[in-house]
Amino acid sequence: MNNQNFIQLSHGGGGLETNQLIQHLFFRYFGNDILNRNEDAATLSFQGPVAMTTDSFTVSPLFFTGGNIGTLAVAGTCNDLAMVGAKPQYLSCSFMIEEGMALSELESVVASMSDTMNQTGSLIVCGDTKVVPKGAVDKLFINTTGVGEILRENISAHQIKPGDVILVSRDIGRHGACILAARESLRLEQPIESDCAVLWPVVEELLKQQVELHAMRDATRGGLAAVLNEWCQTSGIQMALEESAIPVDDSVRGLCELFGFEPYDLANEGSFVLAVPERHAQKALDVLQQFHSEAALIGQVSAGTTNRPVLHSPWGSRRYLDFPAGELLPRIC
Amino acid sequence: MNNQNFIQLSHGGGGLETNQLIQHLFFRYFGNDILNRNEDAATLSFQGPVAMTTDSFTVSPLFFTGGNIGTLAVAGTCNDLAMVGAKPQYLSCSFMIEEGMALSELESVVASMSDTMNQTGSLIVCGDTKVVPKGAVDKLFINTTGVGEILRENISAHQIKPGDVILVSRDIGRHGACILAARESLRLEQPIESDCAVLWPVVEELLKQQVELHAMRDATRGGLAAVLNEWCQTSGIQMALEESAIPVDDSVRGLCELFGFEPYDLANEGSFVLAVPERHAQKALDVLQQFHSEAALIGQVSAGTTNRPVLHSPWGSRRYLDFPAGELLPRIC
Repeated sequence: MNNQNFIQLSHGGGGLETNQLIQHLFFRYFGNDILNRNEDAATLSFQGPVAMTTDSFTVSPLFFTGGNIGTLAVAGTCNDLAMVGAKPQYLSCSFMIEEGMALSELESVVASMSDTMNQTGSLIVCGDTKVVPKGAVDKLFINTTGVGEILRENISAHQIKPGDVILVSRDIGRHGACILAARESLRLEQPIESDCAVLWPVVEELLKQQVELHAMRDATRGGLAAVLNEWCQTSGIQMALEESAIPVDDSVRGLCELFGFEPYDLANEGSFVLAVPERHAQKALDVLQQFHSEAALIGQVSAGTTNRPVLHSPWGSRRYLDFPAGELLPRIC
Repeated sequence: MNNQNFIQLSHGGGGLETNQLIQHLFFRYFGNDILNRNEDAATLSFQGPVAMTTDSFTVSPLFFTGGNIGTLAVAGTCNDLAMVGAKPQYLSCSFMIEEGMALSELESVVASMSDTMNQTGSLIVCGDTKVVPKGAVDKLFINTTGVGEILRENISAHQIKPGDVILVSRDIGRHGACILAARESLRLEQPIESDCAVLWPVVEELLKQQVELHAMRDATRGGLAAVLNEWCQTSGIQMALEESAIPVDDSVRGLCELFGFEPYDLANEGSFVLAVPERHAQKALDVLQQFHSEAALIGQVSAGTTNRPVLHSPWGSRRYLDFPAGELLPRIC
């Protein structure tokens, strides 16, 4: 075993070895004019209002069907910016690494981050590397924090109005189901692929097509159920949802039945929910379907005092879509 | 044992319990108009160029003489902004918490963060909470990422020129020595207090007094030795340092002798190094000494091709101050 191939504590000491890791790995994949200045802080400039968001990624396993912790770390933070109408421009990136991690694994993660960045046109402009002794962290955590100019203002959970329609950008529950399958070492005929993806291209197209957007949110931890409950509470509205209209892949549905999960509670990492005025429903759906044919209109907002989303079954029954509670799947993202 | 007093996996699930933790703990201490909007991303506005920096904190133990991981997490990131002449304005904050952590401990950390924020006038505008199963992280890691307007441009390691003098803002090595003593459970007559502190007030005064500042850097991991070596390499200069002029507290010096460390290699969390033109040396020193009487002029820059700092002893001998290498103290910040 060659020690050169594994992360050592000295890689995080702030001395010679840290400098080498930064120069030979991070700058090689992430290098750009701002990062390369290598100051205590990056210098940026903006024309208008700026959005800022942060996320730490602790997913286990690090690699899964359709992505890894690196793709998640870039997509997740860029998506949070896109959801408020902001272009993902600048990211910080902080690695917390367990001593003994294979450098080749770290390099795979870093390479995926670089590929995912390229899909959004964003740049990593500052970073940090910590190495902790064996056992102090499970392999690798990554924090990314993003900033970007807001190109369309007032997209917010506070803007949802009675009459608005609710759409989802694609079938839901894939990321949660994918991690669950990996965690349980299930041998599925067809592996479930995470939906992990950057949403900026579809949001950019919605903006370009002048679709009026009241609210958007990516349905990550807590899934569709958490987003819709938060929206009902924030805007003081209620929602009627057609259960049969909510797109769920058969593989995800099967896994949910096996483990007693609801697909609405499962995390997504490349699917989002939209509230748009009814007259823009078709225009929004047309754009969404250019990217994913499963995009669908799933319900409508009404005035009301219960502030909860209601699921309507094809057989005429109704039930509340509850806020997810209790121990869902840990380390999903 | 009441489970209500400990962090559960459900606190990080993105559902009901996560919401309660955010509302009842984080918003209670950090609440402000921007954070309280509770969107996917915060909305900020800036007038001029903006600095951005990130740091993850993994210090062990979480609590030490003179601070805790929370004071470090706010001071560390605010200080990186101050070092490039930027006012610390907006911070993101991400908690990675081990299942089973006492809520009272987490609350102490959060309360310290709030106190430290108040000393800089900065705000936490967005956040993230992850809870991982027991053993996946050692108690608590925190990432903070900061942005703020640059009030004085071109403070940079690239601006150091032959003839500049080098100053330190106070005695060095305290934070590293404090953590070392805590880690070794040393019972010292007088505990060594970390220098952990926000540097914005002293930087603000330097700016106000129109002190010309070529470069500033807080001497964190890698200590004074890492900063001076990086400066020599970046600016292609060399430095002569008077060893006897570098302020080191006797307690820190004693611990270094005991463990075979150099005080120049030990981390600081509230001490910084400055390069200023010689004609502003006294003015700079006067401001620094208003905050810490130990502030001192320690050396001078010269043109040269070795690009390394040289220590001059009181007995006329000289040696290179080397870049720290190897396993220094892990989890120092």
